[in-house]
Amino acid sequence: MAAEDISKVCEAHPMIGGDGPNSYAKNSTYQKGFLDVAKELVRKAIAEKLDIDISSSSTSFKIADLGCSVGPNTFFAVENIVEAVELKYQGQGMNSQIPEFQVFFNDHTSNDFNMLFKSLPQNRRYYAAGVPGSFYGRLFPNASIHIAHSSYGIHFLSRVPKEVMDRNSPAWNRGHICYSNSTDEVVRAYKAQYAEDMECFLHARAQETVHGGLMLLTFPGSPDGSPHSRSLVSLELLGSCLMDLVRKGVVSEEKVDSFNMPVYSMSPQELEVAVKRNGCFSIDIMAELPRPLAHDTLSISPMIASHIRAAMEGMIKKQFGEEILDELFDLYRQKCEQSVINTLLGDTFLVVLRRKAD
Amino acid sequence: MAAEDISKVCEAHPMIGGDGPNSYAKNSTYQKGFLDVAKELVRKAIAEKLDIDISSSSTSFKIADLGCSVGPNTFFAVENIVEAVELKYQGQGMNSQIPEFQVFFNDHTSNDFNMLFKSLPQNRRYYAAGVPGSFYGRLFPNASIHIAHSSYGIHFLSRVPKEVMDRNSPAWNRGHICYSNSTDEVVRAYKAQYAEDMECFLHARAQETVHGGLMLLTFPGSPDGSPHSRSLVSLELLGSCLMDLVRKGVVSEEKVDSFNMPVYSMSPQELEVAVKRNGCFSIDIMAELPRPLAHDTLSISPMIASHIRAAMEGMIKKQFGEEILDELFDLYRQKCEQSVINTLLGDTFLVVLRRKAD
Repeated sequence: MAAEDISKVCEAHPMIGGDGPNSYAKNSTYQKGFLDVAKELVRKAIAEKLDIDISSSSTSFKIADLGCSVGPNTFFAVENIVEAVELKYQGQGMNSQIPEFQVFFNDHTSNDFNMLFKSLPQNRRYYAAGVPGSFYGRLFPNASIHIAHSSYGIHFLSRVPKEVMDRNSPAWNRGHICYSNSTDEVVRAYKAQYAEDMECFLHARAQETVHGGLMLLTFPGSPDGSPHSRSLVSLELLGSCLMDLVRKGVVSEEKVDSFNMPVYSMSPQELEVAVKRNGCFSIDIMAELPRPLAHDTLSISPMIASHIRAAMEGMIKKQFGEEILDELFDLYRQKCEQSVINTLLGDTFLVVLRRKAD
Repeated sequence: MAAEDISKVCEAHPMIGGDGPNSYAKNSTYQKGFLDVAKELVRKAIAEKLDIDISSSSTSFKIADLGCSVGPNTFFAVENIVEAVELKYQGQGMNSQIPEFQVFFNDHTSNDFNMLFKSLPQNRRYYAAGVPGSFYGRLFPNASIHIAHSSYGIHFLSRVPKEVMDRNSPAWNRGHICYSNSTDEVVRAYKAQYAEDMECFLHARAQETVHGGLMLLTFPGSPDGSPHSRSLVSLELLGSCLMDLVRKGVVSEEKVDSFNMPVYSMSPQELEVAVKRNGCFSIDIMAELPRPLAHDTLSISPMIASHIRAAMEGMIKKQFGEEILDELFDLYRQKCEQSVINTLLGDTFLVVLRRKAD
């Protein structure tokens, strides 16, 4: 499968739409937990780091949620930001000058915007707009966004690196669906794709964000210096389930060999390198989030399994067909239950970038 | 059926989505004809009436298409406006200062935004956003729109006037689906609903449009002083087809009695009264559009019939069921062929309003 094809797979099925039992909307509790933890940090970041003068020349305060999916997490996140900005105004005695808010909900064109729009909170205090397109390209006019937010979005690459799908390349990623237990060549290919994508991401946001504007990014990542084998354990486990189905004759090995997840678990240091190379942002906060739930493996495993299914099912279905889904994810849930919970959960980071003046 | 219910009918099925044979996307040629005629007038209006200083304090030039449906007409209309604004800049020797454009596509929340986003032109020269909601309420922040456009949108009322659905009211609209051949009481009820809606429309737009900004409205209307019986002939004809089906026993009379189209054919004078009462806009242009096609009745009737089906099928289906659709619209096409073509086509107007400084 060519890189363009995989890229389209990713483009075509970012998350399961609608509101069925396996939908993303009904299976994003796990991320909501991180959002709750991130909530306080985001409020603190806005209280301490936001310069409210940045919106004085604008008719409204503009917020973008990048990779919003279909909700409800995007609404919680946006509501939290709006409240924090209002509090900042109030704290400075500028109650009467609180601006109107306009929120841009962004995701791939194939995202279920119809459902997103139908589930917009009735009592929202902002004007809502949907913006279709990849956040690795430009989405908004120059200097038009005051706060850009992305939660669990920027670990998705724009595409699978070409080499890992090429049988004749030393970076061919045979028998795996991500890079964590793969050869150094595979890891390097993913790392290069990440660097290219992050360059595009920062370049686009640098143009779109007003000077002094903030970018708040929450992402699953890897602590500096940790081995790649500790990254993306939950995905690697899904790959091992697919290989089990290969051994059972349910799935062809070739299909697993040609299937790769466009996902990279960056470290804070890697992000820092990208931000410095871009040059337009300062790093105001870089923090690892405490894990939200101290549950035991048995209670949290089904939640992780459902979450991974909601997020990944579209891509899996396109490659392997609908008929394997239940068997695959049943097996996956069992394997999750047998895993070390903290390894499975991985690490989540929050970074706050501020757009510097040119 | 309560007014709220009918209002929901209208809200739930503004146009047929998707791209099937009866979809609005495939049956909007008739309106495209008017768009072509309107195109030149819109360019002329922008050339003569637009003050490009209005966007000097903004990071981009913002255009809204109100009641955009699913395309492709909205893309033609928007492209035309963008080109006209660019020409205006070029004509004033300000080639290097042409702003970036941001276009907001607005329609009811139930509009098929997924399809709209998928069909966005690849080579567009603007940033696109979708904005769900009724244009009878606020959609955008204060003073954030430079040009608002609406083509074949503002003749849809926000709801059917309550009285016409009330058996005990003198305004009960028995045996008709619009007001053109109804009693004076019915006409008055529709007129009052129009006045109320237009007040809301202008009030919202007055807040959203920058001073000096333009509003370009194309709508099917009635010449000043023309009798109501000449308005909405194509809809009245559809009502008579429904009554034929009542006589054939296919449809219950009660269902026709309780069904009314939330549509009003305003006259230029009525719009002028509303604009003056609102007080925030001046009327720069008010023109009747020449009919785009000089075809004979036989060739144009199927086009009108398909167009009315695409626009109205959702509402008809909800009230009368899917099973009557083909019979109803076959009959309708035949009746169209027997009609006087100009009466059937009706009259279309273009009005250009300019937001006055307070």
